[in-house]
Amino acid sequence: MKLLRVGAPGAEKPAALDAQGGIRDLSALVPDLTPDWLSPGRLRALAAIDLTQLPLVDAGVRIGVPVAGIRQFVAIGLNYRKHAEESGLPLPAEPIVFTKAITSLSGANDDIALPPGSEQTDWEIELGIIIGSTARRVSEADALGHVAGYCAANDVSERHWQIHRNGQWGKGKSFDSFGPIGPWLVTADEIPDPQTLDMELRVNGDVKQASNTSDMIFSVAQIVSYLSQFMTLLPGDVIVTGTPAGVGLGMKPQQFLRKGDVVTLSIAQLGAQTQRVV
Amino acid sequence: MKLLRVGAPGAEKPAALDAQGGIRDLSALVPDLTPDWLSPGRLRALAAIDLTQLPLVDAGVRIGVPVAGIRQFVAIGLNYRKHAEESGLPLPAEPIVFTKAITSLSGANDDIALPPGSEQTDWEIELGIIIGSTARRVSEADALGHVAGYCAANDVSERHWQIHRNGQWGKGKSFDSFGPIGPWLVTADEIPDPQTLDMELRVNGDVKQASNTSDMIFSVAQIVSYLSQFMTLLPGDVIVTGTPAGVGLGMKPQQFLRKGDVVTLSIAQLGAQTQRVV
Repeated sequence: MKLLRVGAPGAEKPAALDAQGGIRDLSALVPDLTPDWLSPGRLRALAAIDLTQLPLVDAGVRIGVPVAGIRQFVAIGLNYRKHAEESGLPLPAEPIVFTKAITSLSGANDDIALPPGSEQTDWEIELGIIIGSTARRVSEADALGHVAGYCAANDVSERHWQIHRNGQWGKGKSFDSFGPIGPWLVTADEIPDPQTLDMELRVNGDVKQASNTSDMIFSVAQIVSYLSQFMTLLPGDVIVTGTPAGVGLGMKPQQFLRKGDVVTLSIAQLGAQTQRVV
Repeated sequence: MKLLRVGAPGAEKPAALDAQGGIRDLSALVPDLTPDWLSPGRLRALAAIDLTQLPLVDAGVRIGVPVAGIRQFVAIGLNYRKHAEESGLPLPAEPIVFTKAITSLSGANDDIALPPGSEQTDWEIELGIIIGSTARRVSEADALGHVAGYCAANDVSERHWQIHRNGQWGKGKSFDSFGPIGPWLVTADEIPDPQTLDMELRVNGDVKQASNTSDMIFSVAQIVSYLSQFMTLLPGDVIVTGTPAGVGLGMKPQQFLRKGDVVTLSIAQLGAQTQRVV
C-alpha cells in the first residue's frame, strides 16, 4: 500500500494510491496519517479498504510529508562503499549516526531553499525507513518487524556548515526544506528485500548518482537494530540510511546546487521526487 | 512562575508552585503543559491565576518532564571554559551542537538506568532553555524573547558510546533516562540574567561540579540565535547549554556512575534534582 498526504502545507489530508496510481482521499476514514496509524494492525486495516469506493483527488495536488507529527529524524553517514571511497574515508566499523531537525522535513516536490549565503548545498539520495512500532534493543532478526514502510529521501546537506562550522554534522543538515521525503510511504509488505532497490538522482537532467541499496555497508535490519541499542525508536520515526557515490562534494571539481537547478530522484518501487532550488 | 507536571509516567497532570512552594493542580484550567501553552500571551494568562484557589497536590508526588510533547532536544558541547580545559580541548570558535533523543527525557528525580554493560556513564549538570515561540534566524538581541523559561538538566553521557563508537556524540547521550530535566520550568521573567546562576552537582554527597553560568563561552542569547540560523526552533524545544568542569571523564583517575550511586544537582532559582543509578 502507498500512503501519502496531500494539500497545502499544514492542511494535508490522508490519502492512498489505488491500483491505477490514482490518489484516493482517506479522510472520511482516517483523521490523519499520524504515527499511531503505522502499527501492524492498523496498516492491515488500511489495506482492507476498497480504495475504488473513495473519492479521487486531483492528480496535480501538492504532496506533503507522508506522516504527520514525525518525532525523530535520524540519519546514517557514509553507508555506501563507493561513497566512502569518493569521500576518501575508510569504511566505518559501525554506523555513523547523526540527526536532522524535524523542521527540515518537506514534501517530495517542495522547493529546496538555499540558506542565506550558501555556496555548498549538496544532494544525497537516500532510502528512508519509517518505523511502525516502538523499537528498544531489538535484534537484527526482529528489526524489520518494526518497520512500517519505506520512502525516497533527499538528505540535502550544506557542506560548509556540516564540515567547517565546528563539528557534528547535523548543523549542515537541518535547514528548513533540507529533508524532502516521499512522495509516499510504501508499506513493508511490498518491499520484502530493501537491499535490492535501484536508485538514481539527476541535477538538471544529468545523472549524478546511480546505485542500488545492495551497496550499503549496514543493511536496514542492522541499522534499526543498532540504533535501538542506544535510543528508543518511536512509530513514525524516519531513518535515512546514507547516500551512494556521486554527491557534489566528491566531484572534481566540486559541484553544488545553484538557484534554478532542478533535482529529480527516484528509487525503484518507492516513486520519484522533483525539487526546484530557490 | 514555576510550572511542572506531576503523576505517574505518561499520566502527568499540569501544576504550578505557589508562593509557599506548594504544588497546585492546574488541570481544571489547562489540559496539559504542551508547547502551545508556552507562548508569551499564554504564560501571562497562567501567571494571572490565583493559585491559592486551586487544589494542593501531595508534596510526595512524582514529578515528570515539565512540558508534554517536546519535539527537539538540542545540546551544546564544551561550553564552559574550565570544562574545555579539563577535557584538554581548545575553546570552540563557535558552538558545538549535537542532539539527544527525545526519548531520553525523564523527570528530575527519576532513576538513571545504566545501559547494559555500561562502564562509563557520566554526569553533566546543565542549564536548560525551553523555547516559547518559533525562532528562525533571530538576532542575539531578539533571542531571549523566544525563551519561555529555564530548567535544571543532567546531560547524562555514556562516554564509551559517545567517544569510541564511531563519531557524532548523540550516540552516548540518547539512552532512555539520560535526560532528566526540571523539576520545573521557571518562566524567563524570574531569571532576568541567565548568566549569573550558581550550579552544583554531587555524587553520593561529594561535590563534583561547582560553577556558575557566567563561565559559559556562548551565552543563552548567543546559543538561541546561533541555532536558529540553521534550524527552526519550535515552542517546547529544550536546549541544554553545556556543562562546567568536574565531569567523571576529566578526573584522574576517571570516575563513572555505578549502580546504587545517587546524583544530586541544583541550579540557583531553578530547583534541585536527585537521581538514583540503577
